[in-house]
Amino acid sequence: MRQSTLFHNTLRESPSDAEAVSHQLMLRAGFIRQLAAGIYTYMPLGRRVLRKVEQIVRAEMERAGAQELLMPAMQPTELWKESGRYAQYGPELIRLRDRHDREFALGPTHEEVITSLVKNEINSYRRLPVTLYQIQTKFRDERRPRFGLLRGREFLMKDAYSFDIDWEGLDKSYWNMFEAYNRIFTTLGINFRAVEADGGTIGGEGGTHEFMALADVGEDTIVVCTCCDYAANLEKAESGAIDVEEDDMISTDEIRDLEKFYTPDIRSIEQLGEALQINPIDIIKTVVFKADDNLIAVAVRGDHEINEIKVKNYLGAQDISIADSESLAKIPGIVAGFIGPMDLPFPVLVDHTVANMTSGIAGANELNYHVRNLNPIRDIELTHVGDFRNVNEGESCPRCTEGRLTFYRGIELGHVFKLGTKYSEQLSANFIDPSGKEKTLIMGCYGIGISRILSAVIEQHHDDKGVTWPITLAPFHVHLIPISIKDDKQMELAQKLYHLLLEQGIEVLLDDRDERPGVKFKDSDLIGIPIRIVIGKDAEQEHVEFTLRKHNMKESVHVQEAFARIIDLVKRSH
Amino acid sequence: MRQSTLFHNTLRESPSDAEAVSHQLMLRAGFIRQLAAGIYTYMPLGRRVLRKVEQIVRAEMERAGAQELLMPAMQPTELWKESGRYAQYGPELIRLRDRHDREFALGPTHEEVITSLVKNEINSYRRLPVTLYQIQTKFRDERRPRFGLLRGREFLMKDAYSFDIDWEGLDKSYWNMFEAYNRIFTTLGINFRAVEADGGTIGGEGGTHEFMALADVGEDTIVVCTCCDYAANLEKAESGAIDVEEDDMISTDEIRDLEKFYTPDIRSIEQLGEALQINPIDIIKTVVFKADDNLIAVAVRGDHEINEIKVKNYLGAQDISIADSESLAKIPGIVAGFIGPMDLPFPVLVDHTVANMTSGIAGANELNYHVRNLNPIRDIELTHVGDFRNVNEGESCPRCTEGRLTFYRGIELGHVFKLGTKYSEQLSANFIDPSGKEKTLIMGCYGIGISRILSAVIEQHHDDKGVTWPITLAPFHVHLIPISIKDDKQMELAQKLYHLLLEQGIEVLLDDRDERPGVKFKDSDLIGIPIRIVIGKDAEQEHVEFTLRKHNMKESVHVQEAFARIIDLVKRSH
Repeated sequence: MRQSTLFHNTLRESPSDAEAVSHQLMLRAGFIRQLAAGIYTYMPLGRRVLRKVEQIVRAEMERAGAQELLMPAMQPTELWKESGRYAQYGPELIRLRDRHDREFALGPTHEEVITSLVKNEINSYRRLPVTLYQIQTKFRDERRPRFGLLRGREFLMKDAYSFDIDWEGLDKSYWNMFEAYNRIFTTLGINFRAVEADGGTIGGEGGTHEFMALADVGEDTIVVCTCCDYAANLEKAESGAIDVEEDDMISTDEIRDLEKFYTPDIRSIEQLGEALQINPIDIIKTVVFKADDNLIAVAVRGDHEINEIKVKNYLGAQDISIADSESLAKIPGIVAGFIGPMDLPFPVLVDHTVANMTSGIAGANELNYHVRNLNPIRDIELTHVGDFRNVNEGESCPRCTEGRLTFYRGIELGHVFKLGTKYSEQLSANFIDPSGKEKTLIMGCYGIGISRILSAVIEQHHDDKGVTWPITLAPFHVHLIPISIKDDKQMELAQKLYHLLLEQGIEVLLDDRDERPGVKFKDSDLIGIPIRIVIGKDAEQEHVEFTLRKHNMKESVHVQEAFARIIDLVKRSH
Repeated sequence: MRQSTLFHNTLRESPSDAEAVSHQLMLRAGFIRQLAAGIYTYMPLGRRVLRKVEQIVRAEMERAGAQELLMPAMQPTELWKESGRYAQYGPELIRLRDRHDREFALGPTHEEVITSLVKNEINSYRRLPVTLYQIQTKFRDERRPRFGLLRGREFLMKDAYSFDIDWEGLDKSYWNMFEAYNRIFTTLGINFRAVEADGGTIGGEGGTHEFMALADVGEDTIVVCTCCDYAANLEKAESGAIDVEEDDMISTDEIRDLEKFYTPDIRSIEQLGEALQINPIDIIKTVVFKADDNLIAVAVRGDHEINEIKVKNYLGAQDISIADSESLAKIPGIVAGFIGPMDLPFPVLVDHTVANMTSGIAGANELNYHVRNLNPIRDIELTHVGDFRNVNEGESCPRCTEGRLTFYRGIELGHVFKLGTKYSEQLSANFIDPSGKEKTLIMGCYGIGISRILSAVIEQHHDDKGVTWPITLAPFHVHLIPISIKDDKQMELAQKLYHLLLEQGIEVLLDDRDERPGVKFKDSDLIGIPIRIVIGKDAEQEHVEFTLRKHNMKESVHVQEAFARIIDLVKRSH
């Protein structure tokens, strides 16, 4: 394509509200333009990249035996009421009414629609298993849309759904998709990890993995073992049995009596540690939560963070949040800032590490007092002991126990779920099994954020001058830049090479704009096409400058040699 | 693909509410399933056809130099208020509010979004012309969704927009798209006509053509000349100067006095014609309309229909409708059923054919009376004479005057518009021209109903057994049917041919289901894959039955010969 006719602009400045590098670069390089918060137009260059992502995903879905269909964005909310997600989804679900006042939701995912479809089409085990997918625009009214395509309100997604006759079948379908996802993200050139994850609102009875692109801008923390292949989302990462800092704990030889002491205005772990010169690992942190309609407390060590997801899953609660000070004030024996795990009027969930302590410091449930020598076995009701905390970086791995856990930031690009019967039960999606009995379909669901991939790739593939696309995703393979379009020799050679490459199916952007070389190079760096051919003063000798954008190493080669290298590079990328 | 694993069902009965053949067949053959009124899921077979349509359209758009982008479905309604379409569009525009109570519309088209985008990106004539397109889901809350994909509420559309520096440029862009559309519909195997059309609500100052698939179910009437290439939508078709039935009119030699006569309870043209034994061509039909807030009357000959679009365009009105009886009752001198064009208290638009009469019969504006010998030149104020009627079938062509006009029913598949400055003016989308002056962008817009094409193709390609897909659009090229999957010889040959064909890139559906031959053939007829290979008792001799679905002529050939024919047919189709 000739750049003079391309609908495209680069920007010198990036908009002030673009925090993520990928967001800045996508705007500056002219891949996207914002229409409203979290809502973007894909410009011709961006659309080209998007189509390449779509093609790679589609090819691997077909290879995995998934069948493509296309479901509507407008979904009758009756279905959402049947599945129970209508209330649960909250304001993220965009709702509207048609001219007959019938309510619709704009699909953020399609579990309800596909379950109801498969229910009507399949009634025998003979037609199972089946995995269906679509590549489609989704809508989610994010509270805080940001980072460009990373958290948008209208975005492209590949969503797939599997239907099996039993859990063994689901297991097979699940790992089949898991492998397809591995191939997809590898082909896309993304540095990623598949991590164990929590089911979240979409729920499900079985396992679930997230496919995370490693990137500092990522909103998730992922936990990876230095030794084995254990990797999990922080929400999900299990805390190991053996605690690495155990040696640092107060000696546990002697069991002392519980002792109250005066701690005026000392309300936080930090203040307590500082005032008493003690290590937070000897402190017990107790926090009161509202879980659905009930109060509960959670006790973890002072150096640990409470993991609300683990607490929620333990309780089987729909929703939990830290109890507000008003609610706390109403409860006798509770003093905010001085809460301890003893004698509370509601259940206390005690983390393993707390249960294992022999002498801890905690709030005394009395204004300006704490207690020391708290011995959980003796002093707390240990009915609810479990894993209620986030792991800390450096802890030993819960799987191999040899390695240590390291933390990365990750962008969630894909998600595979064992849904089980969550939706099929609600929507009565049954089939007849070989023995003639009616059974419930066993489902899995599998998502990939198609548009989000663009951001993730740029987060991983850029330098201070712009994007450095991998060749499989680049909007064009080759950026062909004659230094001066007024120089006949240069233009002649450029045109010749341009047409030779096009004939070979190579995608070439020919910069035939009447611009200064500096402008052309700056734009070229920003856009990030992987192979750059500059045609300058050596055009007469048919010599061109060959550069790989990633390395920025210039080399003067004969045009024939350049041609051969291009063909080779592009062929090898497929 | 193996049919036993395909997510697909055929239906014996078509749902009672499916009126159009294409709607019935798409449901019965398992191409689509309804989720809500006018909202459909494309099943795997339907999705395959849809993708082929997309590919053909995309290829021709690229060939025409249009650049693909992707705009959001969610559009801030501010833009619609700026363009003035917010009020005008009415309940067809689906509106919603986000969590911050900001209003959005779900795009039925994208003139506003693209104009505002181009306004921001292009400010100099140097960057023009440019034509941009997208293939995207559109939303339109139709009052009466029907005929399956022909009139849906969520549908796929290709919309393109051109931007030029002047009207000559627009003319070039317009005809460039016009030619691309001709190529697209020809490749799609559609029997179509490009017809002159009216601008409709989308408006525009220049010309506009519709691309119509000829089909009885079509909601539009198109008018085609038997001699020249004149073709127009009935709304737009011009009435010729010379009227073919003129010889039949009452002799005009003698000018007689206007004469009132008693016509008790005779309120319609039909009653009048019957009672007086006169030809409707001698009667003047006068109808009162409300045009925006004003009353006007239109007078046409008794054998003609008033064309409201022509009336509306003549008046430059936003909206017209027949005046209701209550409004009429309030006007002195107006008696419903006895209205005549004389001495009315508001303007009368007189059709050419009425103005040319010398002696007509009309309402007397008095209960139970008509007048005869009405001479328009003498008796009516002829301030507003024009073309205010639909043409009749059989009339002479307004272009060549040699041919006669014939009528067809048509399905609108594409539409090209010269918009001019309608949107660019409202949204102040300007550019700097070569002389440094600021000018308004000159726009065109160009739509194709992608999903609707499926229906139109089926309307034209079916028989009483099912669909008969053209090979370019068929979900698979070959339907390979072994009579019995329990017969080893048959299955061996089937598998061999299957893999040979797949290696050549041929799309094959292998019916490996354990069903009776009758069921397999019925399903195959319904689905309509163009080439059918049946493997039966002659499998041992490597003979197969070769059938083209369209002709249903069976032929026993050697498998080698079948293979060669298939390759040839598929290659020739591309």
